[in-house]
This record gives sequence, C-alpha cells and structure tokens, in this order.
Amino acid sequence: MTRSARYVGDRTFVVGDTEPAPPGPGQVRIDVAYTGICGTDLHIMHGAMDHRVSMPAVIGHEMSGRIAEIGPGVEGHAVGDPVTVMPLDWCGQCPACQAGHTHICHRLNFVGIDSTGSMQSSWTVPARILVPLPRDLPLDQAALIEPTAVAVHDVRRSRLTAGEHAVVIGAGPVGLLIAKVAQSTGATVTVLELDAHRRAVAAQLGLATVDPAAVDVAAHVRQQTGDAGAAVVFEVSGSAAGVRLATDLLAVRGRLVMVAIHPAPREVDLHRFFWRELEMIGVRVYQRDDYDEAVRLVHGRQVPADRLISRVVPLDDVAQAFGALEAGGDVKVLVACGGGGGEG
Amino acid sequence: MTRSARYVGDRTFVVGDTEPAPPGPGQVRIDVAYTGICGTDLHIMHGAMDHRVSMPAVIGHEMSGRIAEIGPGVEGHAVGDPVTVMPLDWCGQCPACQAGHTHICHRLNFVGIDSTGSMQSSWTVPARILVPLPRDLPLDQAALIEPTAVAVHDVRRSRLTAGEHAVVIGAGPVGLLIAKVAQSTGATVTVLELDAHRRAVAAQLGLATVDPAAVDVAAHVRQQTGDAGAAVVFEVSGSAAGVRLATDLLAVRGRLVMVAIHPAPREVDLHRFFWRELEMIGVRVYQRDDYDEAVRLVHGRQVPADRLISRVVPLDDVAQAFGALEAGGDVKVLVACGGGGGEG
Repeated sequence: MTRSARYVGDRTFVVGDTEPAPPGPGQVRIDVAYTGICGTDLHIMHGAMDHRVSMPAVIGHEMSGRIAEIGPGVEGHAVGDPVTVMPLDWCGQCPACQAGHTHICHRLNFVGIDSTGSMQSSWTVPARILVPLPRDLPLDQAALIEPTAVAVHDVRRSRLTAGEHAVVIGAGPVGLLIAKVAQSTGATVTVLELDAHRRAVAAQLGLATVDPAAVDVAAHVRQQTGDAGAAVVFEVSGSAAGVRLATDLLAVRGRLVMVAIHPAPREVDLHRFFWRELEMIGVRVYQRDDYDEAVRLVHGRQVPADRLISRVVPLDDVAQAFGALEAGGDVKVLVACGGGGGEG
Repeated sequence: MTRSARYVGDRTFVVGDTEPAPPGPGQVRIDVAYTGICGTDLHIMHGAMDHRVSMPAVIGHEMSGRIAEIGPGVEGHAVGDPVTVMPLDWCGQCPACQAGHTHICHRLNFVGIDSTGSMQSSWTVPARILVPLPRDLPLDQAALIEPTAVAVHDVRRSRLTAGEHAVVIGAGPVGLLIAKVAQSTGATVTVLELDAHRRAVAAQLGLATVDPAAVDVAAHVRQQTGDAGAAVVFEVSGSAAGVRLATDLLAVRGRLVMVAIHPAPREVDLHRFFWRELEMIGVRVYQRDDYDEAVRLVHGRQVPADRLISRVVPLDDVAQAFGALEAGGDVKVLVACGGGGGEG
C-alpha cells in the first residue's frame, strides 16, 4: 500500500493508505525516502494557494528515493537507483518554451503543487523529470538538492565571480543555501539577518553575519569593499526594508537578485539604478544545469546538507513537521516517507 | 572676444563678452558652432541643480565646432578639425574607475554641468575629451551626437538583437533617438506616447506609434509578438504609470531599461520580476564605444539628426531657446554659438 499525507484544506492533512499507482508508459514508480517542506508548502497549508491545488492534494517536491518499478519505454534507469526529481513539466509550445526558457513555461506544471507530489511512500512520475544521484550520497541530504538548485540558479543569474563581494539579506533556508553556493564560487559573502538564532546557525556554517538592526550596514559593506560597495545583493527577506537596503549596498554596476517573492509592489529607488547603473534580476526555480551543479555541491559537501537538516518527522506526524516550521527555530524539516530505504 | 551665455540663477542667462582662454598644456580651444539644449540644461535653468553649478555658469555639453588653437603637448589634432566632445572627466582612482566603469566615476566631472560648458563662441577643453568628426558631417547634425550616444548606450545595455520587439515609453528627444537606434539593430520598435504632436513626429520618423490612453497596450504587444511580450522596454517617460506599464509588457526574460530619471522611489511589481525572470537595467550617460557608434549612425543617417532639429536660435537669444523648449512642441533646439563655421 501507498501511505500518503493529503492536504484537504483548512490547515489539515489526512494520512491514509491507497493502492500504489503502477507506472504507465514513460513513467517510473519511486519509493520515496524523504520529502522536505519548503515555504511554498507552508503557504499551501495556510490555504493561500487553494486556487492552484486540487484537494485532496498530495504535495511535496523536495524529495529523494529509489526507483521501485519501471514503466514501458523507459530507458537508462534501473530498479534500486537513487533519484530525486526536477519537479517541472512544461508544454514545449508556448513562447517561453520556444525561446528555450522551459522553466518559465507559460503553462508550467510545477509537480507537487499543480499536480501530485512526493509526500507519500510511493510516487509515480514521468521518467523525464528524474535526476540520478550518486550512490554514496545519503538520501536525507539528497532531499536538499532541489532547494540547492534554487540557490545555484540564483547565484548563476547574478554572474557572481571569485573575489567579488556578495551580501545575502535574510538567513532562512534559501538564504543560507545561496550564501554557501556563493561562497563556493570564491566570492566573499556577508549574511544580514535580524534574528539572533538564525545568525548563529549561519555562523556555524562558516558564514560572516551582521545584524542590520545593530550595525550601519552600508558603512560596513563600504569598509569591507574599499568604498566600492557589494557586487551582488541577494534579497531573500521579502521585506520592504530589504529592498531599500539592497539598493543602498550595491557598487557601480552591482546586481540585485530578487529571490524573495514580494506579493505587493515595493518602492524601489530607481534614481540609484540610474546613478550607479545597477541591475535587478528576477529569478524563478532552476534549469537542468543548476540541478547537476546542486548534486555536485551537496555531494562534495560545499553545501553541508546534513547540517541544514534540523528535524526529521515520520509521515504519520506530518502535522507536527508543519507545526515546527511555523513555530520557527528550524532550518530544514524533512518528512520520512517510509520508502526507498530511509538510511540512504 | 568670446561671447558666452552665463546662467546667473533665478531662471536668468546673461550674454556678454570675455577674453578667450588660451589653451594650456594638453588643452585645445574650440570655436563652437552649435550647442543643443537638453532636459538637464532646462533643470539647471529652473534652479533644480544650483547645488552643482558654480554661478555665473556657462553650461551646455551637446556641441559641435572646429579646433581653433592647440595647446602644448597635444597630438593627433589640427586647427580646423571638426570635433565634438564626450563631456566626461573622471578621476581614474575611485573603485568605479578602477573597475573600468570610468563613466560612473564616484567623482565624475560632467563637463558643462560641474565645470564650464559650450554655450559660448570659444571654449577651451582638455584634448582628451575630444571626439573627431567626419569632415562631411554638417555641424548642426553633429550637435546631436551626444544625445545619440546616450541612446546607443541604452540600446547596448539592453542587449537588443535583430528580430526582437522593443517598446519605447515616451517620445521626447531621447525616446525618439532610442527608437531610431533600436530600429537600426534590426529590432521591431513600438513607441508609446500620450501626446498627439509627439506621436506625429515619431510617425514622420518612420516609427510605429501607439496612444497608451486609447489602446490596451499589453494586449497590443502580445498580439504583435505571438503572445510572448516585448523583449525590451525602454522607460523614458519618468512616470509611475510608465514603470507599471513596462513590467506588464515584458516577455519572459525581458529587459526593462530605466532611462528616465525618477527622482522619487517608484512602486515596482517585483512579483512580475520573479514570475517572468525580468531584468531591470540602470543606464547612465555613455562610454567611448557608444560615441563612435553614434558618430557612425548620425553620419550614416540611420539617426536622421537634421529631422530632429526643430529650431536654431542665436546665442544672443538663448532665453528664447529655453522658452521654446519649456513651451513644448519642439524636439531639439540648438543654440548657434557663432564659432566654427555654422554652416558645417
């Protein structure tokens, strides 16, 4: 039987058993080891995305597992192979796809939001979204490849290079991953975070941190950069103050990467964009190259995924996993989904 | 004698004669043929930049003329050579200069604003800011090379390529120049302008125009681009509405070039930047490559400078030139400065 957590609206998940779906042509069935919970999953639980999910909905897209069964016509995969997925399914026909930007398909199916996700012990998916994993990579760590790919994409879009100075505003899970990926390029990285606990987590990961409520950050960054300012700022706080600070910190020709999702329009200092020829760069999910680099960085421990996992909760206790994330204090919470050999 | 128009504050210019300044080492003296008036000059006349200009101030930086006298140590120039200037003088020492972005020097001297300009019959400048002109280029047209270089810079920063669709919001002189330069790349260009007279001027220059008050511009651009949206939008209106419209019009991975100077922060739809991976690109003045391309485009008539000159006023009537610009209806107003052979 497949055990799954189904979101039924009203902040509620129901855990129960169903028949596993056998893989059709071009599909595989995965025994799911772990599913990470991200901010979007939390938004879904809060009801903010009820217009996008079809209830009862099995959500989840940060996952790892092993191939359990292979459908007709699938080649290059074997039962037992460790895998994660890149949870994007695109139309191939729209102007964005035709221009090669398939990850921003006008009709993108984000697997785990717009269609069934991985918060279940057994999951049947199109083989084309599979990403193979190194056999020696523990599966709990592998569940962090998806958010690491987000960070890799954001850093790649920033064109950050070795020797440049980057500032990350906000030290939640995505901010920490961006900071570690940025560090792996050879850049100098400063993390700004108001919350003392999050600053401590960042410091334990070897990141330089600053409390923007206690320090004149613009003066600090100027001092760190010989009066130039930061080459790149990643805005991951989602706050109006973060946007304001970002433009203040940037050097001539600096790049502001807008990682956080700002639901309302924000005031932006466009005069500063003119005066210093700044750039603002929008970022959304990832492309396949980003996944390959994310696997490499997690496997090579430049991104210490094990140290970002703060809690692992069994599938039956999924409500507790969401509750922990809501309460704050956690970095990454994984749901152990019971398939694929949880020990990796 | 040198005849000059001197800004003395309170919207007032005083025209009078002074001794010409002989060129010192590394300098040349130019007989000035024409000086164009730009929006910044108008701001100065309005008193908005009194903190930057040292009164009495000879302003003006869109110019053409002929070399009249050569100072010690200047090579590669001869008396009688037709020239314009790139009116930027940088320190070479600050972080921006050291990074190669000399046009955004932290201590930039913008010649004609921060130091003495060309609204005089005879003007002594450092030879390093000279830009030689083709001998057969009429000097009235040559006075438009500086604003054309602005447009070249903006189009270059946009990475616009042949076959792409560009939208220009605002058909003032800079908007028109950007539209013509964009057209010269092989892109399709649509100009949005509320004012009927300005739309007519744009149409006479062979540009497709749309009245954004009368047409659903987003639908129009989608229809023009097979539902993709515009690859590039140049925001030249300086209005909040222009910024809002720009983000609505852009295709996936579209680039918003922020040409107009927005003195106050503007609300920007950052969600759209995320959703479509948009970019915003700040632009300021030009670099030497832009000048070389501007000379080529004006000389080759891809930028029809003569058709953009709507009025030529003698130096003694400089107040009338500013008055015409204030009243609207003009495109480019030139001041004939009496030196250099006004007939080109």
